[in-house]
Amino acid sequence: MANGLNELFHETLKDIYYAEKQILKALPKMAKKASSQELKQAFDKHRAQTEGHLHRLEKVFGMMGRPARGKTCDAIIGIVEEGKEIMAEFADSEALDAGLIAAAQAVEHYEMSRYGTLKTWAGQLGMNDAAKLLDETLSEEKETDGLLTKLATREINRQAA
Amino acid sequence: MANGLNELFHETLKDIYYAEKQILKALPKMAKKASSQELKQAFDKHRAQTEGHLHRLEKVFGMMGRPARGKTCDAIIGIVEEGKEIMAEFADSEALDAGLIAAAQAVEHYEMSRYGTLKTWAGQLGMNDAAKLLDETLSEEKETDGLLTKLATREINRQAA
Repeated sequence: MANGLNELFHETLKDIYYAEKQILKALPKMAKKASSQELKQAFDKHRAQTEGHLHRLEKVFGMMGRPARGKTCDAIIGIVEEGKEIMAEFADSEALDAGLIAAAQAVEHYEMSRYGTLKTWAGQLGMNDAAKLLDETLSEEKETDGLLTKLATREINRQAA
Repeated sequence: MANGLNELFHETLKDIYYAEKQILKALPKMAKKASSQELKQAFDKHRAQTEGHLHRLEKVFGMMGRPARGKTCDAIIGIVEEGKEIMAEFADSEALDAGLIAAAQAVEHYEMSRYGTLKTWAGQLGMNDAAKLLDETLSEEKETDGLLTKLATREINRQAA
């Protein structure tokens, strides 16, 4: 029986590592579907950031003396699946960009919850360097979420209404 | 082919309606597993709030002249599934409460993303009463998330470390 905060931290690290890899695959598809240039750019920028997030996670695995390895994350599979459904269902709709933003914000929020949790745990485990790396990623996820809110509020959804 | 922001709003409303029902079922199980009294109370309180969230969603469906009906939400299924795995894997661990909080925060973040999106769209569709109701729920989700962060930071995780 796995136990202890250390083990829980490691399990959750594997979960978000898998999730980031799925996100890395999904973002180019979303960028391709987006009609707004700004939204395309936001997805492209976040894809590049996601590579950095994976790299930071690999460093944290290293600090634990464990190999960087993911484990199937049902949450991100479900979130990405819903995004795909919206992309298919609203493919020819003027609301497609609004749907893409909503899907991306669901992803961002999942990541924000996981990185917030991991950062707290890293601090409690005395892994301060890991906490710092996780916090850097958390900040980028929040920033991306804020940018998407701005895009959603400003123009994209207005076009769709 | 479904199209338009109105249709996207309706689809997402059905998605979160289904999700809230799943959450209503999951919370008593989480409260039962929690060892901290404060965490039990937080889950119980949020269960009661969730009933209110469903009621508000029913009002919004009414404002659209549509029946309140859910549609399978893969995202919440995945998020709840992960929570169950953690509950099983860490059932005898002193880190169980930390795991329960993390699972609940993933749920809260999903809801925050959906209510944020729906509130923005309701405003853009000129449904100001609906936007107000959705914003009330959004505030409660954020409040719950903040309370969980407090519980996680303050003591529960320290016990597990």
